Amino acid sequence: VTTLAELATPALVLERGKLEANGARMRARLEGSGVRLRQHVKTSKSIEVARLAADAAHAPITVSTLAEAEHFFAHGFDDVLYAVGLVPGKFARVLALARAGCRVQVLVDGPEMAAAFVAAARAASVRVPVVIEIDTDDHRAGLAPESKLLLGTAAVLAENGLLGGVLTHAGNSYTSRDAAELRAWSRRERAGVLRAAERLREAGHAVPLVSLGSTPTVLAGESLAGVSEVRVGVYVFFDLVMAGLGVCALEDVALSVLASVIGHQAEKGWLVTDAGWMALSRDRGTQGQALDHGYGRVCDLDGHALEDLVVFDANQEHGLVAARSGPRLDVRRYPVGTLLRILPNHACATAAQHAAYHVVRGGRTVEARWERLRGW
Amino acid sequence: VTTLAELATPALVLERGKLEANGARMRARLEGSGVRLRQHVKTSKSIEVARLAADAAHAPITVSTLAEAEHFFAHGFDDVLYAVGLVPGKFARVLALARAGCRVQVLVDGPEMAAAFVAAARAASVRVPVVIEIDTDDHRAGLAPESKLLLGTAAVLAENGLLGGVLTHAGNSYTSRDAAELRAWSRRERAGVLRAAERLREAGHAVPLVSLGSTPTVLAGESLAGVSEVRVGVYVFFDLVMAGLGVCALEDVALSVLASVIGHQAEKGWLVTDAGWMALSRDRGTQGQALDHGYGRVCDLDGHALEDLVVFDANQEHGLVAARSGPRLDVRRYPVGTLLRILPNHACATAAQHAAYHVVRGGRTVEARWERLRGW
Repeated sequence: VTTLAELATPALVLERGKLEANGARMRARLEGSGVRLRQHVKTSKSIEVARLAADAAHAPITVSTLAEAEHFFAHGFDDVLYAVGLVPGKFARVLALARAGCRVQVLVDGPEMAAAFVAAARAASVRVPVVIEIDTDDHRAGLAPESKLLLGTAAVLAENGLLGGVLTHAGNSYTSRDAAELRAWSRRERAGVLRAAERLREAGHAVPLVSLGSTPTVLAGESLAGVSEVRVGVYVFFDLVMAGLGVCALEDVALSVLASVIGHQAEKGWLVTDAGWMALSRDRGTQGQALDHGYGRVCDLDGHALEDLVVFDANQEHGLVAARSGPRLDVRRYPVGTLLRILPNHACATAAQHAAYHVVRGGRTVEARWERLRGW
Repeated sequence: VTTLAELATPALVLERGKLEANGARMRARLEGSGVRLRQHVKTSKSIEVARLAADAAHAPITVSTLAEAEHFFAHGFDDVLYAVGLVPGKFARVLALARAGCRVQVLVDGPEMAAAFVAAARAASVRVPVVIEIDTDDHRAGLAPESKLLLGTAAVLAENGLLGGVLTHAGNSYTSRDAAELRAWSRRERAGVLRAAERLREAGHAVPLVSLGSTPTVLAGESLAGVSEVRVGVYVFFDLVMAGLGVCALEDVALSVLASVIGHQAEKGWLVTDAGWMALSRDRGTQGQALDHGYGRVCDLDGHALEDLVVFDANQEHGLVAARSGPRLDVRRYPVGTLLRILPNHACATAAQHAAYHVVRGGRTVEARWERLRGW
């Protein structure tokens, strides 16, 4: 048995109780709605986390890489949506998954890639439904709901019996400054994907999948009527960005980085720690929010937020901690060697800096080490 | 034999010829100066890179983690300086390295940690020289050259025959806006560490090690007189921040991320690629420089910079490319499936997102895959 105090710092710590509660909250949100939960495993990249959060060994999942698809399929997750635009260089791996029995779906946002993939799937004699990406927030990929290319793309797929449906992700919801703005993104996300589905149905197509998501738009949104699935990832851990958006409390954040105080700058009121950007990531997601946490909010070894301490700067293996406001920190309260836990701005980014989760359940006993997948 | 076109994207690409030239340049800079090169392997975390850049199998190295120290020692690098402030939780691993025959040195910045480590080393009957960290740029850890604690810290170490010397790192040099400012940081870094050494010598101590570094302060600095060693890391690859500081040309950057164009937003003049922050890192090091490259500068498959294209935004597995200035990009020039190479803002951060380097020598043939170490 290991305790937190025995881990080499920095190290990634996961509170199992919070993970379970966060998973239960999302399931409760969807209960009775007829909307399926398709957890986005890009956040955890962990078989154990995905199973616990979904409360089912082989629940439907969303992936951001083919490496995730292959890894999760090898562990029994056989219903996989690859939600990043496909290119020909990746066809072979998708087709191999399908041939091995994985119910994999892929994403395109135009007729050329739709035609190219349909031809490849036909040549390989496998059936892989293709979903059309819809852009509802002007921030990334996808066809606008009113795009002229939408019906043409759908026609190419439907001709071959491979039109899976429509999907959108209003990632711009993360920039919301208040609850009203977030609800507006949520409405816009749903309205856009429903409009795309409506156009396809008017053209005579069946649209089995109508998918949207992002943790904040699903948790803050009022209605999911007409939606068949949601894709959500960060809810399993939550993070400071989500707390800033008001969709969770600071106490719900299940992930933290264990760090040691390795030095002081007493005159400046700074603590130097061994959790720099290599351990925290360079993500500054709270920079645009009302409460900027720097590179992370500082807690004690039991996970309770300390005074008003934040990581205000980070180098590769050094983090600098100070009071966000108020009087200069008296560094003598945190002698060299003190253990701290830093809550992450963005759970996906911080977790990605680590090879594994060190799992605790309220106390300081590390009851498990859960590996994370990396790479593409 | 693999070619770049056969790699799964995104993937990290290393130009061996540029790495060798960058290594030769640093050795030439130091030739005849009597100053020893102690490569900082936190940049590459690769045995093969360290060997090539140093032009010696077992040259002295600097490390930022004990995992690096253990890994490089296991591969024959037996002269290792651990340049991050030590804490008691890490004593055992340092002492184990020393017992195994590694000539390891450690860093402290005050008398308490000096005394604690000296006691531990004595109890373990091993000799591990301890270096005192000097703060010459007000940005992180260390004692000011005129600090009252300097002589007390040195006395604790010298009493036990363990005073290794003094070390500084003017990381604030990275924020220089022009060559004059960079030279000023370089002078300040050297003057500060020399002053600390002088105070120790005046107190009767031998000061074997006088160490400074950072790639830009060493390459742009005028004099290294009085310095015994330099610690430099990023010179092996260089990056956009270094190019912005004027210490290298864009063509010297040895590292890039291979990416596929996976979509278009034609009206906006955007390319969507599969190299998001997971592949590029969240580092925005050129944000404060005269030329902001966003999340990276976009090149063609052979590494030549394309028009004025930069990655202006990044999500986990999506990068958005557009012209930095001038007319809107005609996306038809880069069809979906086109392969691009993205130069990194900060080589240390971008490389850390990948498990391995794919090594090319000018052409498109991948002649080797070199693993990177990760973790602590």
